Amino acid sequence: MTAAPAALPRSASIDWPDKAAELLAGLREGRTRVHAITNAAAQVLTANLLLAIGGAPSLTISPDEITAFAARADALLVNLGTLDHDRRASIPWGIAAAKAHGKPWVLDPVFVDASPARLELARLCLAGTPCVLRCNASEFAALAAREASPASVAEHAAELRTTIALTGPVDWVSDGERFVAIHNGHPLMARVTAMGCAVTALVAAFAAIERDGFTAAATALVVAGVAAEIAGEAAAGPGSFAPAFLDALHGLDAAQIGNRARIA
Amino acid sequence: MTAAPAALPRSASIDWPDKAAELLAGLREGRTRVHAITNAAAQVLTANLLLAIGGAPSLTISPDEITAFAARADALLVNLGTLDHDRRASIPWGIAAAKAHGKPWVLDPVFVDASPARLELARLCLAGTPCVLRCNASEFAALAAREASPASVAEHAAELRTTIALTGPVDWVSDGERFVAIHNGHPLMARVTAMGCAVTALVAAFAAIERDGFTAAATALVVAGVAAEIAGEAAAGPGSFAPAFLDALHGLDAAQIGNRARIA
Amino acid sequence: MTAAPAALPRSASIDWPDKAAELLAGLREGRTRVHAITNAAAQVLTANLLLAIGGAPSLTISPDEITAFAARADALLVNLGTLDHDRRASIPWGIAAAKAHGKPWVLDPVFVDASPARLELARLCLAGTPCVLRCNASEFAALAAREASPASVAEHAAELRTTIALTGPVDWVSDGERFVAIHNGHPLMARVTAMGCAVTALVAAFAAIERDGFTAAATALVVAGVAAEIAGEAAAGPGSFAPAFLDALHGLDAAQIGNRARIA
Repeated sequence: MTAAPAALPRSASIDWPDKAAELLAGLREGRTRVHAITNAAAQVLTANLLLAIGGAPSLTISPDEITAFAARADALLVNLGTLDHDRRASIPWGIAAAKAHGKPWVLDPVFVDASPARLELARLCLAGTPCVLRCNASEFAALAAREASPASVAEHAAELRTTIALTGPVDWVSDGERFVAIHNGHPLMARVTAMGCAVTALVAAFAAIERDGFTAAATALVVAGVAAEIAGEAAAGPGSFAPAFLDALHGLDAAQIGNRARIA
Repeated sequence: MTAAPAALPRSASIDWPDKAAELLAGLREGRTRVHAITNAAAQVLTANLLLAIGGAPSLTISPDEITAFAARADALLVNLGTLDHDRRASIPWGIAAAKAHGKPWVLDPVFVDASPARLELARLCLAGTPCVLRCNASEFAALAAREASPASVAEHAAELRTTIALTGPVDWVSDGERFVAIHNGHPLMARVTAMGCAVTALVAAFAAIERDGFTAAATALVVAGVAAEIAGEAAAGPGSFAPAFLDALHGLDAAQIGNRARIA
Repeated sequence: MTAAPAALPRSASIDWPDKAAELLAGLREGRTRVHAITNAAAQVLTANLLLAIGGAPSLTISPDEITAFAARADALLVNLGTLDHDRRASIPWGIAAAKAHGKPWVLDPVFVDASPARLELARLCLAGTPCVLRCNASEFAALAAREASPASVAEHAAELRTTIALTGPVDWVSDGERFVAIHNGHPLMARVTAMGCAVTALVAAFAAIERDGFTAAATALVVAGVAAEIAGEAAAGPGSFAPAFLDALHGLDAAQIGNRARIA
């Protein structure tokens, strides 16, 4: 198990599997609407993931429409994976609309490690204080200008005044005061394009009904990781893994979460 | 069963399962070409649905190319789900090219209930008199400025001089003079993104070989609904439903349609 | 079996199944990065195919970022299937960056037979001498201004000083000096959108580690064809074929290639 940063308490007070099951049940009741400004390769999987957990996705990237869609949604996802003209124009207005209407928004700074233009744009977005920043280790290193570790993730979360959810073989979540590590998931997740992007949409859905970003991110990652494990057992490879993952999310119950969640 | 509007005759003279099977067979022979100006989340499923029934899809949204592609196709689909710069510029020229070459076109006014800009654009498109308008109840209510019912659907179809195909748990189709209700389909259709958009492409394919929009829409919805029922029996959730739906469409035969069609 | 052009030697000196298995093994070790400027309908399948064989895809089409992404990749794919504003601006810079950094690039001139604008753009791209040109018979006929045959493919490859890989029920590969025909594959490949586009990305991945474009194209097409045959045996239709194809690619081993490859 990952050692938590020494200075940070574990969040022992939360029964994570119970909380994850409770929020998942809430999503299934509510047709929670998530508007996703996301990259071209992620749109279908993101929408299908949100539909599989009972949510209602919308995906427009048109600058003329983004404020209406963001205001109407319960949460906003901003993913930087495709930065075409329309998305560049829509992202700041989408964030502004979400904030003006008191809706949480979540940032996924895809490939900020690969392009200086994208890194700069991600930093501008972070000035709008997302509820959760979901990234991988390379993206974190580019953004935070330091290597990813439990301590550096907690430190940078405190600096940004947000929750950072760093996903990988083990997921780390911290808001600078609390820290948790999640040991669920399956290696085939890394062999399906946009899986991380779609999981960030799940974080946004959880954030729509749980305003504590730390709790929302940790429970969403538990749910995604448990569903991935179930899918991995049924799949013959990455092709069959993706539909099996959606099936598993759709059918996920509290007992499966309780039996499989590895979070501490 | 839905009551038809009192003033409108049922179309008892058509043997719907036979007609649906006949048109499906025609599509499989002919490599019918449908050009789809459709939203980013719908492009893959739309193309795969058209390929599954033996058609030939094209998807370009480039304003420089749209007239060549629309003129070359047997039918045009216009879906408003993504309204970026290129699609906005291409839609009116695509419609003009389809009309100039005597090809039917079908409108899918996605999310007109969510954005005033989109509602206005949909109304401008409707001035070009599509062969079929396919929408859901919310989109119909926004467009027609009245609640959806068999009577209001028939009434608005007469006003627009088109066929309206309103899909939902029960599908209603009317051209203002005739009315039919289709009780096929499966709840998982609503848990797969762009399923409605893809079904509108099927309507366009049927319209390419059956110029009576009312007959084309009703038979296409029967075919989609029966395939969805077959897929629903094989699927473990929304992830496996989507490929099973394409498999079912690809293999659909007259006996399956005859045994399952519930249209009156 | 296809007769090779009389004037061209078969490449009897290469043990094709062994070479294909060797290159596939190399790709699985190396996380070979392919940047794909590809059409909207192909992005997801292309990325998933590259991930399934152990590669690392990137997909940005932003003109601001294309040179950074192309320089960072091991090979570049240029697919003309969607020609929006961003892709038009990015394609020449992507090609220039690939060439400047000594990285191979591969061209897929989708639908050049359908649009004069696209044909002109494809010819401009060809002036940048791709490592491989992958096309179908209709696209070849438009580009080469002659019908496709083993002799005309070899002839035009010599004129272009590239390798042409013409795919169809039988695939032909020639660099103008050598010629090979591949009799693998499955009819369902033609019923899944963007399958040809995704296979071109596989050619690009092979070209990244095998600089002889003729060898790279021939082995990539053998691998794709064998995986398609395995998938076709497991699939119930085009919907289940696509994930089965990715599963088969992911699990493909030297024995399967050796037993099934039909190349001469």
